[in-house]
Amino acid sequence: MLVGMHPHQDGPLARLRRGHEDLVLDLLRKHGPLSRAELGQHSGLSRTTLSDIVTELIESGAVVATAPGTAPRRRGRPVEALTLNPSAGQAIGIDFARRAVHVSAVNVAHEVIGSAGEPHDPGLPWEERIALAERLVGTLADGALRLGALNAIGVGVVGPVEDPDAGPDTGPAQPWPSAELPALLRKRFEAPVLVDNNTRLAALAEATWGAAAGGQDVLYLRLSHGVGGGLVVAGALHRGAYGLSGEFGHIAVESGDGRCSCGATGCLETVASVGAVLAAYRRAGGHADGLAALLGALEAGDPVALRTLEAAGTHIGTVLAAVCNAIGPGVIVLGGELAAAGPPLFEPVERALRAHIMPISRDRVDLRPAALGEAGGALGGIALVLRESPLLSHYPARPG
Amino acid sequence: MLVGMHPHQDGPLARLRRGHEDLVLDLLRKHGPLSRAELGQHSGLSRTTLSDIVTELIESGAVVATAPGTAPRRRGRPVEALTLNPSAGQAIGIDFARRAVHVSAVNVAHEVIGSAGEPHDPGLPWEERIALAERLVGTLADGALRLGALNAIGVGVVGPVEDPDAGPDTGPAQPWPSAELPALLRKRFEAPVLVDNNTRLAALAEATWGAAAGGQDVLYLRLSHGVGGGLVVAGALHRGAYGLSGEFGHIAVESGDGRCSCGATGCLETVASVGAVLAAYRRAGGHADGLAALLGALEAGDPVALRTLEAAGTHIGTVLAAVCNAIGPGVIVLGGELAAAGPPLFEPVERALRAHIMPISRDRVDLRPAALGEAGGALGGIALVLRESPLLSHYPARPG
Repeated sequence: MLVGMHPHQDGPLARLRRGHEDLVLDLLRKHGPLSRAELGQHSGLSRTTLSDIVTELIESGAVVATAPGTAPRRRGRPVEALTLNPSAGQAIGIDFARRAVHVSAVNVAHEVIGSAGEPHDPGLPWEERIALAERLVGTLADGALRLGALNAIGVGVVGPVEDPDAGPDTGPAQPWPSAELPALLRKRFEAPVLVDNNTRLAALAEATWGAAAGGQDVLYLRLSHGVGGGLVVAGALHRGAYGLSGEFGHIAVESGDGRCSCGATGCLETVASVGAVLAAYRRAGGHADGLAALLGALEAGDPVALRTLEAAGTHIGTVLAAVCNAIGPGVIVLGGELAAAGPPLFEPVERALRAHIMPISRDRVDLRPAALGEAGGALGGIALVLRESPLLSHYPARPG
Repeated sequence: MLVGMHPHQDGPLARLRRGHEDLVLDLLRKHGPLSRAELGQHSGLSRTTLSDIVTELIESGAVVATAPGTAPRRRGRPVEALTLNPSAGQAIGIDFARRAVHVSAVNVAHEVIGSAGEPHDPGLPWEERIALAERLVGTLADGALRLGALNAIGVGVVGPVEDPDAGPDTGPAQPWPSAELPALLRKRFEAPVLVDNNTRLAALAEATWGAAAGGQDVLYLRLSHGVGGGLVVAGALHRGAYGLSGEFGHIAVESGDGRCSCGATGCLETVASVGAVLAAYRRAGGHADGLAALLGALEAGDPVALRTLEAAGTHIGTVLAAVCNAIGPGVIVLGGELAAAGPPLFEPVERALRAHIMPISRDRVDLRPAALGEAGGALGGIALVLRESPLLSHYPARPG
């Protein structure tokens, strides 16, 4: 019946099948236990199609067939009920940041049941990072998390992540073991693995549980040791043609003349990263051995610190205005360590944004501080799993 | 059975239903005539669901139930076959530009069967523009176009078009009769009407039949009397949160200090529109009473003209680099009257683009001249109809 639905993971038939699976899961989530006949009525699917879908959902552990109800029926044999596996539907998010691993988990109702993180040496081998992730996952939900029925793991990594469907030779070089990591994680957790850039995932997390919860068109800018971001477009994570969407830190700014890590000059990152802002503060005569000291100076009203943030914020707002004119987001979320500067940063950002955005859009976009902090990347991994094919991995079809 | 599928046009169930309709149409397109039983087997849909879908497709004129075949069957009554209506599946695109109406049509195989256009006074009343459109449509396919079974009409208009699902009060003021136009057209052509900005539609057309045919992530920039554009993101037309996506002409450029029609200053449009480039040419001592004269001067190698285009191209390339860093398109299409300048424009655009785009993206994006010319907006209307719900209008649910 469903001939041709398996070979092409992203063909219209595969998408239809995934839609059927989501529909069945949705119906069980909303109605509670249902018989196959009831599922058929609610879903409009034929008996054969439904049987295929249900078999796969049971095999994946997402759905269980319960013992027939105790209430006697008028005639015939008792009816089996299908229900969501109470210990399944759980998804895990792991963020392999540069110097730390963060993990989060959600239960079957998509509620976050816990997050954990631990810093590590930047040179820690990947085997050990994965072991650390496994240990951290073990601490969630007081160790009661059942991994046997995981839908999938959403994983954030540093650097560009190519579109897994674009073929092996189209993406940029990746600073993480793109061939091995998904396989290693799949082996450890026995679940499909979805991988994406951790800053992009943080954008998705903010649009799911954070500052832009429920937002369909969200621009997330992260001001950290680097400057990056992510876009949620029409409710979905945006990747671009070659997996390099959201590189707002490498948009050229007027006075940016410093050499950037990307190889270009004049990037926003060269004037708005934590390091760049600290350097500008020191050049202007300020004294700060790190971001905490600069934040302290801001709080104390140090005019040099305020002017430094004003300059950085103006560049940031100008770049945000350009991106807003191009893509018209409803919400802009500012995150990363530098966002902790608060109003001394947000006010000049907002002024420059309003000055350079099309007047017609001026009152249509909201600027908000990020809400999820360091857990954003891991939570975004979960959001990715929940939004994109809960039961299908993008990876098995790729040659290792 | 399909309870709840109708009220929410864009809910998961409505999307599922639309997917079912597309699937049935697709199967009929690929296999030719099929019985209901065969359709059931191929689609995996239940008899009830399929019956609902087929009834609606027949009512819409997209599908016809043919007389039972002449071949005698072994037993039972002869089997009715379902087939695509040979005179249906046709879609029409209409572009209501500022001073002209353009129309195009496709047949059931999605082949363009004709385009036509006619200039008019900018003050022509809408009733007369619609009558002009109707007359132009009548000239297509030697007048043999059957309108009775139109799937839908895709219409391009000047200016911002709000998301029809975003509610009546969220969009900007629109320079076309947003309440009346769809109703008027629906009455004339007896088909659902989809409306979008005509420059955005030209982007979709270029990504469907034009310079970026088949492109999933396409940036279209139109250099005309205004400067605008459109984005195709993951194969779909991008609108943004408030229908203002693609306003590349209002991104601020370094030396742009002129007042822009949008109310801001320093917009790309103030240095890269046809009028702005002509003015810059004259300021530099050049003589040209219009674009044709400037293009002639370029062809003759006039150094002032070349320098003028070099300056405009550099601004354009810089803005394109910023947008590329944000959204990572695979193809950039340059259209509009100014694009006729050819290499004297494209070369500086390409240089500035390469200079300011992230080095990692430098060789991943293609810059190409638009291929569809003035028919782009009307063809884009058709592309919109073919990509977005062939049988559902976005408009009937809106209060007039």
